[in-house]
Amino acid sequence: MSETPVTVLGLGDMGTALARALMKAGHRTTVWNRTAAKAEALAAEGALTAATAGEAVAASPLVVVCLLDYDSVRQVLEPLGDALSGKAVVNLTNGTPQQARDLAAWAAGHGAHYLDGGIMAVPPMIGTPAAFLLYSGSPDVFADHRAVLDLFGESHHLGEDPGRAPLYDLALLSAMYGMFSGVLHAYALVRSDGVAAADVAPLLGRWLTAMSGAADGFAQQIDSGDHATGVVSNLAMQSAGFVNFTGSAGDQGISPELIAPIGDLMARRVADGHGHEGLSGLVELLGAGGPGAVQTR
Amino acid sequence: MSETPVTVLGLGDMGTALARALMKAGHRTTVWNRTAAKAEALAAEGALTAATAGEAVAASPLVVVCLLDYDSVRQVLEPLGDALSGKAVVNLTNGTPQQARDLAAWAAGHGAHYLDGGIMAVPPMIGTPAAFLLYSGSPDVFADHRAVLDLFGESHHLGEDPGRAPLYDLALLSAMYGMFSGVLHAYALVRSDGVAAADVAPLLGRWLTAMSGAADGFAQQIDSGDHATGVVSNLAMQSAGFVNFTGSAGDQGISPELIAPIGDLMARRVADGHGHEGLSGLVELLGAGGPGAVQTR
Ligand SMILES: NC(=O)c1ccc[n+]([C@@H]2O[C@H](COP(=O)([O-])OP(=O)(O)OC[C@H]3O[C@@H](n4cnc5c(N)ncnc54)[C@H](OP(=O)(O)O)[C@@H]3O)[C@@H](O)[C@H]2O)c1
Ligand SMILES: NC(=O)c1ccc[n+]([C@@H]2O[C@H](COP(=O)([O-])OP(=O)(O)OC[C@H]3O[C@@H](n4cnc5c(N)ncnc54)[C@H](OP(=O)(O)O)[C@@H]3O)[C@@H](O)[C@H]2O)c1
Repeated sequence: MSETPVTVLGLGDMGTALARALMKAGHRTTVWNRTAAKAEALAAEGALTAATAGEAVAASPLVVVCLLDYDSVRQVLEPLGDALSGKAVVNLTNGTPQQARDLAAWAAGHGAHYLDGGIMAVPPMIGTPAAFLLYSGSPDVFADHRAVLDLFGESHHLGEDPGRAPLYDLALLSAMYGMFSGVLHAYALVRSDGVAAADVAPLLGRWLTAMSGAADGFAQQIDSGDHATGVVSNLAMQSAGFVNFTGSAGDQGISPELIAPIGDLMARRVADGHGHEGLSGLVELLGAGGPGAVQTR
Repeated sequence: MSETPVTVLGLGDMGTALARALMKAGHRTTVWNRTAAKAEALAAEGALTAATAGEAVAASPLVVVCLLDYDSVRQVLEPLGDALSGKAVVNLTNGTPQQARDLAAWAAGHGAHYLDGGIMAVPPMIGTPAAFLLYSGSPDVFADHRAVLDLFGESHHLGEDPGRAPLYDLALLSAMYGMFSGVLHAYALVRSDGVAAADVAPLLGRWLTAMSGAADGFAQQIDSGDHATGVVSNLAMQSAGFVNFTGSAGDQGISPELIAPIGDLMARRVADGHGHEGLSGLVELLGAGGPGAVQTR
C-alpha cells in the first residue's frame, strides 16, 4: 500500500513539525512556505519543495494548511480558487468558529472538501501520545484520511459544523491562558519577595494538577444552574481571601492585573447575594445564556 | 503514648474538616466557633466544646486557628493576650506575608510559639494523600507537632520567616484562580454556542494537565531572564491568535474580561520587540525585579 501524498502549506514551528511527522511515516510530502528559506531543512530531509502554493496544492490530494491566522490562509488560498477542486483541505490554523464556517463555505464553492482542525499540542508534542487534535467539518475527509491525521496526534471529530473544532480549541486554549496568567502572577509574586520561580514550580505544578479536577464539578454546576449544593469553598470566604492577592501584590509592588478580574466578579456575585454559593456561578456574569440555554448530550 | 490535646478555633467548612481529622486520630479535640451552633455536629461526634475562645485555648497546648481572615483572627486572639503564653499557635487562616509577620511578632510578644500555614486542599481532601500544607515560622512548633500536622496532609516547612508559607500559598492559589478564570471563560464560550460545559470538560481537564507542565519551563526562563532560547510557540503568533479569543467572545456575546489581560500584555510585549520570545517574558511587565533580583537556591 502506498501512502497518500500530502502537501503542507506553512512551515512555521508547527507546520514544520507536521511535515516531519508525515515524512517520518513515509508520505511523499510537498511543502511550501512564503519565506522559502524555511523549507531548506525539510528539503535536506527529503521533502519536496514547491515554488508556489499553487504548485504545492497540485502535488497532492490532501492539503494541510498551518499558517499564522485566517487572514494569511485567505491570502494564500483565495488566489488558487478552483485549483482546490476535489482536494481535501485540512486547515489547522487557529481561528474563530465564524472564520471556519466562512472559509468552509468558500472552499465548498470551489469544490474543495473542507475539514477544520485545532491542534492541542506544542510542536515537540506532535506525533507523541500527549498530542490530540480536534476536527470538525467534512466527515468524509476525516474518515478517508484518518490514518494520516493520527500521525499528528489522537484525532477527535466533533461534528459536521466546521465551527465546532475552533470553538473547542478556543475554549481549551482560553483555559490554558487563564492558567498561564495565574502562573505568571505567581512567579512575579514570589520573585518580588526574593524566592526563585524554580523553587515554587514543583509545588505549583502539583497544585494545578490537583485543582484541574475541579473543572468537572464546575461543568456540572454550570449546566444545571445549581451553584449552591455541596459547596465546600463558599464564595464569601473566597472573596474575603481574594483581597490578600491584591493586598500582597500591592505590598510587593507588582501589578495584579492578570488575576484581578476574577476577584472583581467574585465581589459582584457576593454583593448580589450569592456568597453561600461556589465559584461556578461567576459564569452567570459573563453573559452566556442560563442553564436552560443548552441541552446536555 | 497519649496524643496531644488540640484546640481548633473556627468551625467553618475547613475548621470542621481539621477537627474531624484530629478526632479520627484519637486526639482530645476542643472546639470553639463564634456561632456556637456549628459545634453541635462535632460535639455529637465526641469533640469537647468551649463556650469562649479563652476556655478553648486553656484546654490544649496546641491551638489550630482557621478563621475567615486575619481581621477575624485578630478579633479572636487579641483579647486573649498572655493566655497564649507557652502555647503553640498554628494559624491556617489565609493571609498575606505581611499579615503573618505582624501576627507572629504580636504572638511572640505574648509568649506564644507561632507557626503560620497555608492549606493546599479543599475540605474533603483533608487527611487524604492529595492534601499538602505549607508552613513557616517556629521550627520548634513544626518539629514538636509534626505528627499532628501530618494528619491534615503532607507537611512542608518553608523556613523561619512566617511570611514564606503565605507567600507560597498566595502564589499557588493565584495560579489556581487564573486557571479557574480560564475554565469559566471556556465554559461560557461553549455554552454560548449551544455546547454543554460537561461535553468539553474531559478534553479540557486533559489539556490543562498536559499544559501545566509548561510552568516548569517558564520558571527557568523567568529565573534566567532568557525568554528566547528554544521557543516553539512565539509570542507574535500567540498574540495574533489571541484576537480570536476576543473575537469569538464578541461573536458569541460573552464578556472576555477573565482572559483579556494576558492578551493585552502579549500585545504590549510584541510591540516592544519581543515577538520572537516566549510567553514567560510577560512577567517582566508585572513589575517584579529582573532576573538578577533573586538567587536560585
Ligand atoms: N506553535 C504552537 O505552539 C502552536 C500550537 C497549536 C496551534 N498552533 C497554530 O498553528 C499555526 C501556526 O503556528 P506556528 O507556531 O507555526 O507559527 P509561526 O512559527 O509564527 O509561523 C507562522 C507561519 O505563517 C506564515 N505566514 C504568516 N503570514 C502569512 C501570509 N500573509 N501569507 C503566507 N504565509 C504567512 C509564516 O510564513 P513566513 O515564514 O513567510 O513568515 C509561517 O509559515 C497558528 O495558527 C497557531 O495558532 C501553534
Ligand atoms: N474551604 C476551602 O476550600 C479552603 C481551602 C484552603 C484554605 N481555606 C482557608 O481556611 C479559612 C477558613 O475557611 P472556611 O472554608 O472554613 O470558611 P467558612 O466556612 O466561611 O468559615 C469561616 C469561619 O470564620 C469564622 N469567622 C468569620 N469572621 C469571624 C470573626 N470576626 N470572629 C470570629 N470568627 C469569625 C466563622 O464563624 P461563624 O460561623 O460564626 O460565622 C467561621 O467559623 C479561610 O482563611 C480560608 O481561606 C479554605
